[in-house]
Amino acid sequence: MQKKARLRKQFKKTGIDGILITDIVNVRYLTGFTGSSGFLVITKNHAIFTTDFRYKEQAEHEIKGYRVRIEDSERSGEIKDICDACGIKKLGFEDQGMTYGFYRKLVKRKIRLVPVTSIVESLRVIKSPEELSYIKIAVKRAESAFRKLTPFIKAGATELKIALKFEELLKKEGCKRMPFEVIVASGFMSALPHARPSGRRLKKGDLVVIDWGGEYEGYCSDMTRTVLIKGNNMSRQMELYKNVLEARNRAVESIKSGIKSAEIDNAAREYISKEGYGDFFGHGTGHGVGLAVHERPVISWRNKEEIEENMVFTVEPGIYLPGFGGVRIEDMVTVKKNRAEMLTSLPRKLKII
Amino acid sequence: MQKKARLRKQFKKTGIDGILITDIVNVRYLTGFTGSSGFLVITKNHAIFTTDFRYKEQAEHEIKGYRVRIEDSERSGEIKDICDACGIKKLGFEDQGMTYGFYRKLVKRKIRLVPVTSIVESLRVIKSPEELSYIKIAVKRAESAFRKLTPFIKAGATELKIALKFEELLKKEGCKRMPFEVIVASGFMSALPHARPSGRRLKKGDLVVIDWGGEYEGYCSDMTRTVLIKGNNMSRQMELYKNVLEARNRAVESIKSGIKSAEIDNAAREYISKEGYGDFFGHGTGHGVGLAVHERPVISWRNKEEIEENMVFTVEPGIYLPGFGGVRIEDMVTVKKNRAEMLTSLPRKLKII
Repeated sequence: MQKKARLRKQFKKTGIDGILITDIVNVRYLTGFTGSSGFLVITKNHAIFTTDFRYKEQAEHEIKGYRVRIEDSERSGEIKDICDACGIKKLGFEDQGMTYGFYRKLVKRKIRLVPVTSIVESLRVIKSPEELSYIKIAVKRAESAFRKLTPFIKAGATELKIALKFEELLKKEGCKRMPFEVIVASGFMSALPHARPSGRRLKKGDLVVIDWGGEYEGYCSDMTRTVLIKGNNMSRQMELYKNVLEARNRAVESIKSGIKSAEIDNAAREYISKEGYGDFFGHGTGHGVGLAVHERPVISWRNKEEIEENMVFTVEPGIYLPGFGGVRIEDMVTVKKNRAEMLTSLPRKLKII
Repeated sequence: MQKKARLRKQFKKTGIDGILITDIVNVRYLTGFTGSSGFLVITKNHAIFTTDFRYKEQAEHEIKGYRVRIEDSERSGEIKDICDACGIKKLGFEDQGMTYGFYRKLVKRKIRLVPVTSIVESLRVIKSPEELSYIKIAVKRAESAFRKLTPFIKAGATELKIALKFEELLKKEGCKRMPFEVIVASGFMSALPHARPSGRRLKKGDLVVIDWGGEYEGYCSDMTRTVLIKGNNMSRQMELYKNVLEARNRAVESIKSGIKSAEIDNAAREYISKEGYGDFFGHGTGHGVGLAVHERPVISWRNKEEIEENMVFTVEPGIYLPGFGGVRIEDMVTVKKNRAEMLTSLPRKLKII
């Protein structure tokens, strides 16, 4: 109810008298619907959810506060019918949640359309106490699975075998889906920030980047730990780790409500640059996490967005030396007035196995 | 090379002198790139792949025949730069592969844009011998995993446990990702065509719908089997199964090159309707499978698309009785001149466990 009221507040500002929600994650946020196909139309007096036959029973079971319709013809025609029935003159739509092709179909149906940007995403960026409690369970599941994984991380094991075991452990914790495919990247592969697990076997002296997520009631967690397989010469690996950990600490310490996203990124980036690795930290320092594993806010040198209380995001600086290896440490935080509250709790001291 | 030439042939017809490919599956199809972020610009004389820092090494390793660029600013600006450098006056873009919001960003950069529909999808719909060989391996992996799963499907086991075991077996076969989350839906849950595995335990008399996919080199397979847990009264379950199997057989027998998609759907649907279950078969009879697990052609009563040789798609009629249970049998075929060649080979006789 509250969410619908907050959406309706935006109607006046944007001059619309109804809004079409097509982004399926936004649909879930507003209704609780967990299926993969459906859309909403919300007006001052109506709230209508439409899905297809496959989800009829599920929608009736999951969704409260919306009229549930089952579509039986081309979607743009269904939307036109709803506009006519509800007397919508100007229909807002999500400019990031609709393809250009579908937009043209609606135009051809003579629907007057007004693009709106991030209208639901703006609500999603601030987490409610209930959402925070879900995210904490997603983190807990992810951390518990990692603890059970530790004995399987050892020289001679393949990345794929470790990743497979990890997914099994995450599912056993209750995660219904992986927010993304688990990353286990060892040796030179760890220099690829998004490497997929391969048949490569962990070797002495390898840095091993492990990046994974948990899930609870659709909410995600996302974290990374880098471990080191004991070898003869480990000084460079340890130096990289020390730098990334210090950058991570500085970024976390910079967090409070009211600052700009870029300030958090700068706190990490300036340190890494000062140590001479600025060219080897090619991604942003973090991203929001919620129903989507990548959502607002983007924590980046490009982003001037203000950080607000009860946002949830990752802090994940890294250094990647092509051909040698990489280190990333990723934690999740939620923002309090004067500080970050850590959501992740696994040790951050370098683990040498 | 051949693929680029086929794309360039479309330039004259659509009046464009370059095309922007943003759909990541289409990018993979054209280049072999397996990462999650990147786009292509192809002109008569240029072929440029752009990705971000994370994928630099991977792109250089995977991609042949394209110049690889790493983006370091806002994507719409990067595209503008490429248009200027290559002298593109009219840039085609994928109307289904770009959001309205991103389209507006490009318009603001003063790029002259021409929407094109399914330009790469039209190539993808006909499979090459190499693609067919990959899909056959994806099917083989899926079937091999199912055979190993059989002992775990029994009264008392939970849907979730069976699904978890299945995913483990699929990964052990070598599948790097699941084309979709495995469905194990038992009893009344089997009446929901896209149910997610729950903690429900299989009971005597349950129909159990199991829908899963395999993978090889990015290519997918997709199939469904319904089994019956031995109970006291199984007559209705067996009747549903018999009807779905006969509908499946009729659909498969109708397949040859040159017919319309709707004719295949009709072959299954008319039979199910005649038997009185027309209202309980709410989805189309099939869909194409390739790099995406759902792609063209759509096998549906609404679709007049012509069926051509070397298309690959599913045949998957079903009957779903709310509150009671459902049956679906899904096979994959490729089209030959006068017939369907079966890609799936697991027995279709009702298995009573």
